[in-house]
Amino acid sequence: MTAAAKIDILVSEVGPRDGLQSIAAVMPTAAKKAWISAEAAAGVREIEVGSFVPASLLPQLADTAELVAHALTIDGLSVAVLVPNFKGAQRAIECGAHKITLPLSCSESHSLKNLRRTHAQVIEEARAIGELLRSLPAARRPCFEGALSTAFGCTIEGLVPERKVVELAEALMAAGCDEVGLSDTTGYANPTQVRSLTRAVWAAVGRDRLTGLHLHNTRGQGLANVVAALDIGLTTLDASLGGIGGCPFAPGASGNIVTEDLVFLLEAMGYRTGIDIDRLLAVRRLVQAALPGETLYGFVPDAGLPKGFVPAAAQAPALVAE
Amino acid sequence: MTAAAKIDILVSEVGPRDGLQSIAAVMPTAAKKAWISAEAAAGVREIEVGSFVPASLLPQLADTAELVAHALTIDGLSVAVLVPNFKGAQRAIECGAHKITLPLSCSESHSLKNLRRTHAQVIEEARAIGELLRSLPAARRPCFEGALSTAFGCTIEGLVPERKVVELAEALMAAGCDEVGLSDTTGYANPTQVRSLTRAVWAAVGRDRLTGLHLHNTRGQGLANVVAALDIGLTTLDASLGGIGGCPFAPGASGNIVTEDLVFLLEAMGYRTGIDIDRLLAVRRLVQAALPGETLYGFVPDAGLPKGFVPAAAQAPALVAE
Repeated sequence: MTAAAKIDILVSEVGPRDGLQSIAAVMPTAAKKAWISAEAAAGVREIEVGSFVPASLLPQLADTAELVAHALTIDGLSVAVLVPNFKGAQRAIECGAHKITLPLSCSESHSLKNLRRTHAQVIEEARAIGELLRSLPAARRPCFEGALSTAFGCTIEGLVPERKVVELAEALMAAGCDEVGLSDTTGYANPTQVRSLTRAVWAAVGRDRLTGLHLHNTRGQGLANVVAALDIGLTTLDASLGGIGGCPFAPGASGNIVTEDLVFLLEAMGYRTGIDIDRLLAVRRLVQAALPGETLYGFVPDAGLPKGFVPAAAQAPALVAE
Repeated sequence: MTAAAKIDILVSEVGPRDGLQSIAAVMPTAAKKAWISAEAAAGVREIEVGSFVPASLLPQLADTAELVAHALTIDGLSVAVLVPNFKGAQRAIECGAHKITLPLSCSESHSLKNLRRTHAQVIEEARAIGELLRSLPAARRPCFEGALSTAFGCTIEGLVPERKVVELAEALMAAGCDEVGLSDTTGYANPTQVRSLTRAVWAAVGRDRLTGLHLHNTRGQGLANVVAALDIGLTTLDASLGGIGGCPFAPGASGNIVTEDLVFLLEAMGYRTGIDIDRLLAVRRLVQAALPGETLYGFVPDAGLPKGFVPAAAQAPALVAE
């Protein structure tokens, strides 16, 4: 599988960031590098390798700069990082990350509780980052995504009105983001809502400015929401190998949707991901060895591939997804 | 919630049959009756209460006749049973079941291994049952479904050709079935295949003759397949409370899709099921108490409903599923 092979859906691996920040154990840097390399070798085209947050807050991600440097040596890999603010963005740019993601929680209560910032304050950070990016030569300018977290509902506020999400999407784009993403931080989303909210944001900011969805599997609805996302034409899906991190409120639930189960779904449906699922499944051993005692999730890893399974690229054209 | 309230999707509970036949423990008859009554009281409109197989083969289901008699006392409940052959159908008719389901495995290897019967032999049973049914007065005639098991693939043969499934659907209808159903016995199905196979069978036997899908969650794809089923307009979905039975090859996987997670998905999407999800969740306690030590599955039971959750019947018309 060469990096140039055409894909239909970009699977963006967020385990090294969203997964690892959710557990107490600190994975050694060498193991993280091996994980990133192994997933890229399996065909994964984008990996969120860490977050530029103070090490005092998230010691699990203190080695993000080193991981960006490592990931940049891998040909064809898009290297993404999360940045909580302007300072984080500066560091990400210095390191040469290809993509930076600034989260904005659509629920202001959630934003205040988790980031200690109002919506206006986060939008102001976005504006400052946008200005900094515009001052850079194009070759050094990463893609800047605003991530609309709790977009499908919040454990404090409950349902977040669609118009609020749309309004914040517009504000992020006006502040200088290149694109926005929708995040189901709380595992509240359902397929009807995925379609409806995506269409509403598309109507406001343009279809090419929202291509991605970040799902959690708290209520077991993650892959059901993926089907809705595929139906309307979203093309980037975040997932985490082994669903690392789990969900503290739901003992059997992974955190993010599980990369292995997602890739199986996509390839079985006829969507090319560029990922070799056998090689992807093999990466679990490496991650499990580096996180002894930590639960890895996923159904396909336990059940195995169906007998005679045919990945998308090998399917007859008539079988390719409608 | 009265039995007359309109529903969009019929959730057919198969736990007392498919769930209980998959575990070694024998649930006491009184507990089964309480389970059936409690689920009906929560709004479930159809329950497969057992199977007329020899008690020597499945002692777990030896009390099926008594359960049918009990279930028939519940107003508005459709009482379904599985019948492996003509003799089972005779017993089901004597008991007054509303619906009988004869399984036919689309993989002949699977049919020989599990039922010790060729396709031709099963079709002959169907023909004999159809003849018996036609000899009955209409009021005593149950609905006769032919269930196409391993329709999405088989652990022995791998992929089952679509034309084979279609051919068997036609043969079952010609033999006297009122309708056919598609069963993903092995957890091989994907959403593209659900759409494609349903359309192929519809083209052969008529859209009104295939309304139901029976899914397993072996590879975590059960609810993703439900979304595809809803999109094309299937209206009956089998599920099992707590996903009882599990899957011997996939330690974390339920057997059938989990009724609680399915009802959450449907109601969140705006599809009315007639089921009160809080009352449904409460039925788990009763089932767990009657099956000590047995694992119950499900994500929604662990995570709880989202804050501010609005079931379908209470949603504004604009939010109802497209």
